[in-house]
Amino acid sequence: MARPRPLSGFPEWLPSGRAVERHLIETLARVFALHGFVEIETRAVEPLGDLLRKGETSKEVYVLGRLQDAGKTGYDAKTLGLHFDLTVPLARYVLENAGRLDFPFKRYQIQKVWRGERPQEGRFREFIQADLDVIGLGELPFHYEVELPLVMAEALAALGIGQFRVLVNNRKVAEGFYRGLGSGDAIDAVLRWIDKLDKIGPQAVAAGLAGEGLSSDQARAALDLAAISGSDAAQVAHDVRRLAASAGTGGPLLDEGLDELSALLEAAGRRLPGSVVADLKIARGLDYYTGSVYETVWLGQESLGSVCSGGRYDSLACSGGQTYPGVGLSIGVSRLVSRVLALGLLAPSRLSPAAVLVAVVAEGDRTASDTIAAELRRRGIPADVAPVAAKFGKQLKYADQRGIPFVWFPGSEGDGDQVKDLRSGEQVDADAATWAPPLADLAVGFAKPVRNDP
Amino acid sequence: MARPRPLSGFPEWLPSGRAVERHLIETLARVFALHGFVEIETRAVEPLGDLLRKGETSKEVYVLGRLQDAGKTGYDAKTLGLHFDLTVPLARYVLENAGRLDFPFKRYQIQKVWRGERPQEGRFREFIQADLDVIGLGELPFHYEVELPLVMAEALAALGIGQFRVLVNNRKVAEGFYRGLGSGDAIDAVLRWIDKLDKIGPQAVAAGLAGEGLSSDQARAALDLAAISGSDAAQVAHDVRRLAASAGTGGPLLDEGLDELSALLEAAGRRLPGSVVADLKIARGLDYYTGSVYETVWLGQESLGSVCSGGRYDSLACSGGQTYPGVGLSIGVSRLVSRVLALGLLAPSRLSPAAVLVAVVAEGDRTASDTIAAELRRRGIPADVAPVAAKFGKQLKYADQRGIPFVWFPGSEGDGDQVKDLRSGEQVDADAATWAPPLADLAVGFAKPVRNDP
Repeated sequence: MARPRPLSGFPEWLPSGRAVERHLIETLARVFALHGFVEIETRAVEPLGDLLRKGETSKEVYVLGRLQDAGKTGYDAKTLGLHFDLTVPLARYVLENAGRLDFPFKRYQIQKVWRGERPQEGRFREFIQADLDVIGLGELPFHYEVELPLVMAEALAALGIGQFRVLVNNRKVAEGFYRGLGSGDAIDAVLRWIDKLDKIGPQAVAAGLAGEGLSSDQARAALDLAAISGSDAAQVAHDVRRLAASAGTGGPLLDEGLDELSALLEAAGRRLPGSVVADLKIARGLDYYTGSVYETVWLGQESLGSVCSGGRYDSLACSGGQTYPGVGLSIGVSRLVSRVLALGLLAPSRLSPAAVLVAVVAEGDRTASDTIAAELRRRGIPADVAPVAAKFGKQLKYADQRGIPFVWFPGSEGDGDQVKDLRSGEQVDADAATWAPPLADLAVGFAKPVRNDP
Repeated sequence: MARPRPLSGFPEWLPSGRAVERHLIETLARVFALHGFVEIETRAVEPLGDLLRKGETSKEVYVLGRLQDAGKTGYDAKTLGLHFDLTVPLARYVLENAGRLDFPFKRYQIQKVWRGERPQEGRFREFIQADLDVIGLGELPFHYEVELPLVMAEALAALGIGQFRVLVNNRKVAEGFYRGLGSGDAIDAVLRWIDKLDKIGPQAVAAGLAGEGLSSDQARAALDLAAISGSDAAQVAHDVRRLAASAGTGGPLLDEGLDELSALLEAAGRRLPGSVVADLKIARGLDYYTGSVYETVWLGQESLGSVCSGGRYDSLACSGGQTYPGVGLSIGVSRLVSRVLALGLLAPSRLSPAAVLVAVVAEGDRTASDTIAAELRRRGIPADVAPVAAKFGKQLKYADQRGIPFVWFPGSEGDGDQVKDLRSGEQVDADAATWAPPLADLAVGFAKPVRNDP
């Protein structure tokens, strides 16, 4: 067999990289659980009819076929496809299990998703998402729109890889503003143009807005609104109200949106100062979110784009006259991991989970080494045993290659056991029934991040 | 949207079931790591050419298509399919990363796999496997054939769901026996018949063996060999040698196989008595394994068949003149979980990870409750906050439904905070900066198994 090459778009890591990925996933899960979120896992597949319900993502779906059906062409709604996100499965799961779930249903879900896109720079076709949502039955209090981004900000900060900032906007602010402006009919088109602001610049956006029928005054007001940002709730509200007044717009929907935006900024300022900033040019998702909308930048790694996005939706699903509103965010875990590994921000303190390698004096004495290792493991100390009763130098090399910090030498008649710290070279008498490594060496640790301030 | 129904063959659990599944997976991972195995995760897909290399599994492969290619028919070797086990991906991963892995490479891998079979009773089309393998570079010492099933036996015992027994056989015993018997040419056919023993009985197997050209004496010897079992190494070796002598077979290969089988039984008797039993009718896999072969029964749940199987293979992969021998076992995790849930052998001590629900006195005072919860979480105590400032009875019900053991009542002016244990009804003064639940309530626990002795 020729040496296989990686498949573009399907990331895979060496064991050290996987250890980092797992550490990041476990850190996220720990913070989510600390806030009372339960975990679920859904199957990888959904019927194509469900995956395509929104109609926009057809090109991204991987469809499953069975090998013996190779002659068949075409798909129907019951054909299975791999899920491309964790929101469609969540909606289906909630409906399927509605009578057996407690609402509000606070859940997290960390799984692989697949998108059959042509691979590009930084685009994965298989990747891990970490989703956090609260789903209500019929209603969902606004305060979850404050809680969710703060839990995410806490989880991202706990990763220890740098600083993150959640950028927020609110559909009601945008809609209230544009309706009062008289451009309410074109609101989704306007938002699509605003979404391109960073890429194509204000002049091109203004031209685009003119093409949608906005007057130059309306277009200027839209650009002025998009320019407002900040973490001071009162200042942001003041700036928007002043602009609205000068542009001749406003009304109860805008007021409601500004109240929500302010409440979120105030809570963030109290609980996690600097973690949340209003940015009124955030427009992606505003066409289907109905309240708060979130994007997240990793400071210093802005080229990654938003690493965690989401928002409030009034109807995640509905069935039998019952609606399920929700609010949630989703982290693109694989893109984070890929960047962390590329930059070397975290690395496991050793390759092997073993804290101790028990040497083997002679192949006939392997049982003695196995017994020592079993005794260490019984007390929770991860231990490996040398693969071959080679010269001790070779056994030490086995430990050294894997970063195993201690090597245990079984005693012979008259001599007791000894353990050597490979880092200090110190070798001391030891008893497998009582010896323990320093606590810091018990489990694999992860290096502190390099300084990553903006 | 109509209420969705489950997809046959794609198991999914309610949050409590997922908590059990996760607990079992984490327990396996903990034991594997304790023995110095590193974790890897491979992509879900492999090129069809690699998946079909062995030629036997074509009917089980799910092939990926892209939606816009719906008019295309047929597949080629580069078409992607979902992996149907974790062995094919391991072989590919080892070759792809050969220069960057340390050998012997001790790895575990716990992932979903997919098989496009028609669903039957107990057959899943998507399920989790937990694989444990050691891969050598060019050579791999025999002692790993002893270590691997013992690590698995320890991991299965740690699940706390009952007793497991690893049944072992050895290709060299079978091959040495049949070659000396003069039926060496038909050995794989003979083993396929022996594999059916439990299903069709000895008479039908004898008839089948006759059809393969075995004399009635040879067939009787084959059935007699298959009837040998036991955990006493000396007794098993004695029984086989006596049968071999009377049937006129034997030789160095049989002796080598018996020595290996004995070494495994002796080590198991020392380290985990009762965990490993020789069973010479084990034949599945003997056509591609080259030494030890393992199956595992869950005592009392024999109808599940083997829940953990594997063996020694002299060449997991080869490339550029280098071969990679290995030994490994694979647990069918989803089948275990499914049975554990069906029998109610384990259940989480509560549905929510939260140990405390902080009540909300009035919606305007939510910040006070959020602050208390944040203080508890800062000290590692999982805490949720009531969704609505409803009457306390309703808030208590929220906690009760989710099994959250403590409800925290924020104090008002003059009165301090209080915390109530919902199980005892006891309510005491408490300070969020110092109070802690009993250690047993900190994290979700899992109920002890019901007695499941054979």
